[in-house]
Amino acid sequence: MDSSFSDNIRVLITGAAGCIGQILWKGLPEPMARIGLDLAGGAPSSVYTGDCTDAAVLDRVLRKTGPVDAIVHLAADPRVESPWAAVQGAGIDGTRQVLAAAVRHDVPRVVYASSNHVVGGYEADDPLPGQDGRPRLTAQAEPRPDSLYAVGKLAGEALGRYYAEQHGLRVVCLRIGSVRSHDDPTREERLRRTWLSHRDLAHLMVCSLRAAVDFGVYYGVSANAQRMWSLAHARADLGYAPDDNAAVHTA
Amino acid sequence: MDSSFSDNIRVLITGAAGCIGQILWKGLPEPMARIGLDLAGGAPSSVYTGDCTDAAVLDRVLRKTGPVDAIVHLAADPRVESPWAAVQGAGIDGTRQVLAAAVRHDVPRVVYASSNHVVGGYEADDPLPGQDGRPRLTAQAEPRPDSLYAVGKLAGEALGRYYAEQHGLRVVCLRIGSVRSHDDPTREERLRRTWLSHRDLAHLMVCSLRAAVDFGVYYGVSANAQRMWSLAHARADLGYAPDDNAAVHTA
Repeated sequence: MDSSFSDNIRVLITGAAGCIGQILWKGLPEPMARIGLDLAGGAPSSVYTGDCTDAAVLDRVLRKTGPVDAIVHLAADPRVESPWAAVQGAGIDGTRQVLAAAVRHDVPRVVYASSNHVVGGYEADDPLPGQDGRPRLTAQAEPRPDSLYAVGKLAGEALGRYYAEQHGLRVVCLRIGSVRSHDDPTREERLRRTWLSHRDLAHLMVCSLRAAVDFGVYYGVSANAQRMWSLAHARADLGYAPDDNAAVHTA
Repeated sequence: MDSSFSDNIRVLITGAAGCIGQILWKGLPEPMARIGLDLAGGAPSSVYTGDCTDAAVLDRVLRKTGPVDAIVHLAADPRVESPWAAVQGAGIDGTRQVLAAAVRHDVPRVVYASSNHVVGGYEADDPLPGQDGRPRLTAQAEPRPDSLYAVGKLAGEALGRYYAEQHGLRVVCLRIGSVRSHDDPTREERLRRTWLSHRDLAHLMVCSLRAAVDFGVYYGVSANAQRMWSLAHARADLGYAPDDNAAVHTA
C-alpha cells in the first residue's frame, strides 16, 4: 500500500448512476469526496450529466471539480449482449477518452472496471477452473472473451497498460464478478462462484485506490469457496481481504 | 497440418496493395488463387477496390468471388503512430467486419495480421528478451502494447478468439515482425532482432492457411539469432521452419 494514502481523497466516478456506481457511492468511506459523471445524471448534486466519449465533457467536468486523485471508470453499456456500436463507443472509445483526460489533467490514477467475461470462455469447460482439482484462473491466463462486450473490456485493459507504461498513469483493472443490487448469492446458481458482495466491492475499490502498483489486472470476487478466479494477486498486491463467501451465506 | 489441405485453394487478401499484401501476392505458391481487396485498388484485375469497415463491400466481394477457403486480413493503417480514429476504424472495426463477414459467408478460416508491437513495451527492458540469458517471449507473455496501434492489434486478437470460440471460425493471429520492401536486415540495427524475410513470410502464411488449429497466436519472425520472440509454438503448431537468419545475412 501507498503510505502517503489517506481516505481524504477526491474521486471522480464515471457511470456513477449505474448499479455498481450507486453501490460505491454509498459504500466508499465517508471522508472520500465523490464526484460523479453519468449519461443519466442523478440525484446527488455532485453527479454531472454527460458522455465520457466526449473529451470536451471530461475537460469541463475536470476543470470544474478541481484536482482529483483518481478516476474510477465504470461507464459503459453493462450488458454482456451489448451491440458492437456500444462496445466501440461507450466501451472502447470512452475508456480511451477517460485515460487521455486523466493524463491531460494530471490525475495520477485510474481504476478501470473490466469484467470477468474476458475469461468467460472457460465456463464452457468441464471441470470449471477451481473445481475438481483444476487450478483457479490467474489474470495471466489466456483471455477467452465470451462476447463482444468482453472484447471491449480486453481492449480497455490494453489501453490501461499502454497509458500506464507510456504516459505514467497508474492503472488498476478489476475484472469484476457478479454484483447484484439484491446482494444475495443464493438467488442464482452461478453466483455461488462469481458473487462480489457490496462490502467486498467497496473494500476492493479502496484497496485499488491505495495500491502502490503502476499497472495490474485483478479479479474482483468475494472469497466464495467455489470461485473460478484466483485472489492471490489481489491479496498480495492490493491487500484485498474479502469478508464474504457465497458458500456460507444464507438468504 | 490439415491432411485435407492442398495448395489449390482460394484466398481473399485484404490490404492486398500494401507492403505485406504485395509481397504475399508474389510469394504465395502458384496454384493458390488470390483475390484482393484494398482501399487503393491495384493493378491486378483480381484486386477489388473497397473498404473493409463496410459490411456491404465485404458482402459484394464475397458474393462475386464465390466461395473462398480463407481470408488473410492485412488491411489497416500500418503506421505504429496511427491516430486513434484509424485504430478504431480500419483497425478494430475493420477486423470485426471481416470476421463477421467470414461467418456470414461460410469462410472457414481467417489469418489475422497482428503485430510485434503488442509486446513492444518489453523493448524498454535491459536486457531485452532473448539476450543475456533472458528467455524469449512466448505469445502467452503479458501484453505490453507500445502504441494505440498495438492496442488495436490486441483488440483484433481478442476479436479473433471470440469468433473462433463462439462462431466456429478458425483464426490464426500472426504477430508479424519487421517486413521491409528492401528485405535487407543489415540496414537497421533493430532488424537483426525483428526481421521477417519475404520468403519466410510467405512460408509462414502457407503454414497458417494449412494449420489444424482452431485459434492461435504466433510470432512471425525469421530465425534471427538475436530474436526476442519464441518460435517454439509456431514450429510445433504450424510447422513453420524459417530459412533466414539476420545474423548470417550479408547485404
